[in-house]
Amino acid sequence: MPLNRIGWEEFRRLDAKAKAAYFAEDGRLFHVLLAQQFDRARLEDLGALATRIRFIAKSDEGRRFLKGLLDARRAMLYFTQPSTRTFLSFCAACQILGLTIGEVRDPATSSEYKGESPEDSVRTFSSYFDLIVMRSQIAGLAERMAWVLSNAGRPIPLINAGSGRDQHPTQALLDVYTLQRSFENLGGIDGKCIVFVGDLLRGRTVRSLAVLLTNYGGLRLRFVAPEPLQISPDVCETLASRGVAFETGGDMESAIRDADAIYMTRIQDEWDAREGDSARIDISRYCLEHRHLQMIKPTAVIMHPLPRRKEIAVEIDGDPRAVYWRQMRNGMWIRAALIAAIFGRDGDIRGYDG
Amino acid sequence: MPLNRIGWEEFRRLDAKAKAAYFAEDGRLFHVLLAQQFDRARLEDLGALATRIRFIAKSDEGRRFLKGLLDARRAMLYFTQPSTRTFLSFCAACQILGLTIGEVRDPATSSEYKGESPEDSVRTFSSYFDLIVMRSQIAGLAERMAWVLSNAGRPIPLINAGSGRDQHPTQALLDVYTLQRSFENLGGIDGKCIVFVGDLLRGRTVRSLAVLLTNYGGLRLRFVAPEPLQISPDVCETLASRGVAFETGGDMESAIRDADAIYMTRIQDEWDAREGDSARIDISRYCLEHRHLQMIKPTAVIMHPLPRRKEIAVEIDGDPRAVYWRQMRNGMWIRAALIAAIFGRDGDIRGYDG
Amino acid sequence: MPLNRIGWEEFRRLDAKAKAAYFAEDGRLFHVLLAQQFDRARLEDLGALATRIRFIAKSDEGRRFLKGLLDARRAMLYFTQPSTRTFLSFCAACQILGLTIGEVRDPATSSEYKGESPEDSVRTFSSYFDLIVMRSQIAGLAERMAWVLSNAGRPIPLINAGSGRDQHPTQALLDVYTLQRSFENLGGIDGKCIVFVGDLLRGRTVRSLAVLLTNYGGLRLRFVAPEPLQISPDVCETLASRGVAFETGGDMESAIRDADAIYMTRIQDEWDAREGDSARIDISRYCLEHRHLQMIKPTAVIMHPLPRRKEIAVEIDGDPRAVYWRQMRNGMWIRAALIAAIFGRDGDIRGYDG
Repeated sequence: MPLNRIGWEEFRRLDAKAKAAYFAEDGRLFHVLLAQQFDRARLEDLGALATRIRFIAKSDEGRRFLKGLLDARRAMLYFTQPSTRTFLSFCAACQILGLTIGEVRDPATSSEYKGESPEDSVRTFSSYFDLIVMRSQIAGLAERMAWVLSNAGRPIPLINAGSGRDQHPTQALLDVYTLQRSFENLGGIDGKCIVFVGDLLRGRTVRSLAVLLTNYGGLRLRFVAPEPLQISPDVCETLASRGVAFETGGDMESAIRDADAIYMTRIQDEWDAREGDSARIDISRYCLEHRHLQMIKPTAVIMHPLPRRKEIAVEIDGDPRAVYWRQMRNGMWIRAALIAAIFGRDGDIRGYDG
Repeated sequence: MPLNRIGWEEFRRLDAKAKAAYFAEDGRLFHVLLAQQFDRARLEDLGALATRIRFIAKSDEGRRFLKGLLDARRAMLYFTQPSTRTFLSFCAACQILGLTIGEVRDPATSSEYKGESPEDSVRTFSSYFDLIVMRSQIAGLAERMAWVLSNAGRPIPLINAGSGRDQHPTQALLDVYTLQRSFENLGGIDGKCIVFVGDLLRGRTVRSLAVLLTNYGGLRLRFVAPEPLQISPDVCETLASRGVAFETGGDMESAIRDADAIYMTRIQDEWDAREGDSARIDISRYCLEHRHLQMIKPTAVIMHPLPRRKEIAVEIDGDPRAVYWRQMRNGMWIRAALIAAIFGRDGDIRGYDG
Repeated sequence: MPLNRIGWEEFRRLDAKAKAAYFAEDGRLFHVLLAQQFDRARLEDLGALATRIRFIAKSDEGRRFLKGLLDARRAMLYFTQPSTRTFLSFCAACQILGLTIGEVRDPATSSEYKGESPEDSVRTFSSYFDLIVMRSQIAGLAERMAWVLSNAGRPIPLINAGSGRDQHPTQALLDVYTLQRSFENLGGIDGKCIVFVGDLLRGRTVRSLAVLLTNYGGLRLRFVAPEPLQISPDVCETLASRGVAFETGGDMESAIRDADAIYMTRIQDEWDAREGDSARIDISRYCLEHRHLQMIKPTAVIMHPLPRRKEIAVEIDGDPRAVYWRQMRNGMWIRAALIAAIFGRDGDIRGYDG
């Protein structure tokens, strides 16, 4: 990654596609900031790499091989927004590849109380570590920090593990990987019908996934949500501009009958403007019950980014179409693949003959 | 560990002995939940294994051997109840065997605030790790979680590091190991007189240890405590049903004269129903002072699960009969032995020729 | 480190020089507590070792060599005073040498709430780990704990990572190392003019560094600070007694013209007796702006212990004389050197032929 070629203010005003192009100019993965960075070829590569890692990790010998790949590197997990799941997933992904970890999870133990700017904090981390994985409540902060790092004397890669309501690119990658695996023997993702249900406005997961899905052809997307939580217009515009067929509205029960994948989501009430706002919405019609299982296709898959509340009844867990637990584990594999690719160890993994 | 053969409600109503039998059916260690799981043969085996690990760890070469045993595995330390000591002890035990660690110690950084059930949380951890060590304020939660894991697609072992006021099996194991070592040249644990002093009602340590001691013969146990904190009737019933001789009551000074082991405990005021309840109890008569040293046998040992407050005067630390610091370190060794046994590496340790 | 030869009360009343002599009696590094422990020969040795480590760490092969040096050891980072920077620096230093880490950063998760004494806590850590790195708000606590450890059955080294307002010896080491590197081709530290600016009363960094600088000849030190935050008389006495030339007072702009090194510091308002005390001080005259760059020597260096607020304008970061980011990274190298020396692995590092 060379020094920045344009100033921050100029960069900041670019649209997501132009930003993505900027950070991927030389064709190599370095910072991972936006779902828009990933084209179809990259998605296929990463999926294949994740699958390879998953198989190698089945034996002790394979696990030792993987652990030797980046055992001379150290990663900083900087999570000022609480997240057990994403944190542990990255933690495991790093450990699989042998990276040792430093972490800042509790903003209160940080030196920010001493009045340090976030820029200086991140530059500090970059002094001690070889990779920063960062999660923040502030939209765009990861981009800003990647920007700062690219101008520092010792640039290191940064992965966005969720920033604001906006981007969560590695969650989108694991979702695509789950779809790739689910439809492996069903002709792949192209042409499938995917139904999104729940809080589609504030789940950055759905936003990021919708962007990735524009890489596939013949899709039919359907967004089923309570009116105040319906998918935002800018996502619809993106889909329309890329020629992806989609519908919004309608009821869940009719939508799921036709679905190849049903993507359930949680009401994200931590983003409520006033406490209790979400509680006033009737979400009972956006919950998957055991009785729905008979309505959906035998080859359909049920996904959820987790954690869940009541959107999916626990009794559904045992159904072979419920893939959300596997989906979560996929997150670990795809993140390991991503980190391996960033450090250029993907070739070693492909060449492993265990 | 196969799938559960009976439902949770049915299991839950079993008594501790039946539960222990259920989880140990095939004779292998998998989940570690209850002191009742451990019979005498297992206690002797684990003690011998811990001693072996302790000796191997004396050299750099030995430490590297141990660290290579489970270096392809990862453990999750899930401690929603604060505990520096038990946490660090497990941390060290894992590191000795080469396991890398992920941790959740502060419930506030967890995703429970998003409304996830504990069952889903534990299943999440099981997706990323190969072992869960769990400590909780809720009695029976570890059993429940082991149950959940046994039904998951990818069951992994779970170790109870303390649940509610009830069970703390690994503390009991380290206590037994300390007694084994202390009486190694004095005919072993059989026939010894053990005096317990302090808060015997709420110290789950004493409860779990009493259960393990029923595996030995000819013991005399004595429980000396302020009346409101005396050992609970169900422990007395267990001892009586197994033919263990015991007495409750009396004063500390007369009890310790006869003791082979004196087990001091702290007033557990964090369990007070109302704040300050414990403060009203006069505990001065349940504290070991320097002047008591001349009253006790030259071969006696003084134990304490730690942390201590005033139950043992600091001046006693220098006396060779004060073994509580060694007892704490024993915790690290016995936990390493336990984890090695769970993963079937005990044979390698016994066969090590360093 | 043998058992203590004198009692704690007697030790406590010794002056810093006598204390330093006490802990360094056999010429080996064991506990690192006070800047006064380090003489010039030791400073040169550690600096050379840090540089060696820095070069070895440039290749994957070198990093693996370093990581193998102490991979059979474990370190406890016990930071009850928040400090992201020093914590991560030690974390990285340990990881470079292969030490696995346990940590206690949040006093609230510790067992201190159970009424345990700090002495017992530290003795606990010493049971599970091979090295303790400790940071505390309490002046003298690190000395006290080293004392306790030296009397324990299993003494392990302890490094003071900052105690109270008083000592921060490893920060002083990294500052000296930065001066060594900066003046490598300019005749070394001897004879240089060093200007300290800012809160010189409460920055333990400056106190500890002033002590180390008494090992060099022909220095001219200048302390520029708002009157209420001027360097304390005991530091001046130390400098005078060792024949170091120094001045206090005057304005920053005239002082920096002559400086070989400008050491900026932050107002440490976390030590304010009453909240807001520092806010009443006009510190604008103690901030380095871009316009000052033209006033200072072309060979001068600008240092800062970080974190900074407004004492150094961000625009200065790009100037080659701004070495504070390198200074921070130096902290990682010098700490790695220190730990390697404590464990006697400095010879292996010097002999490495990579």
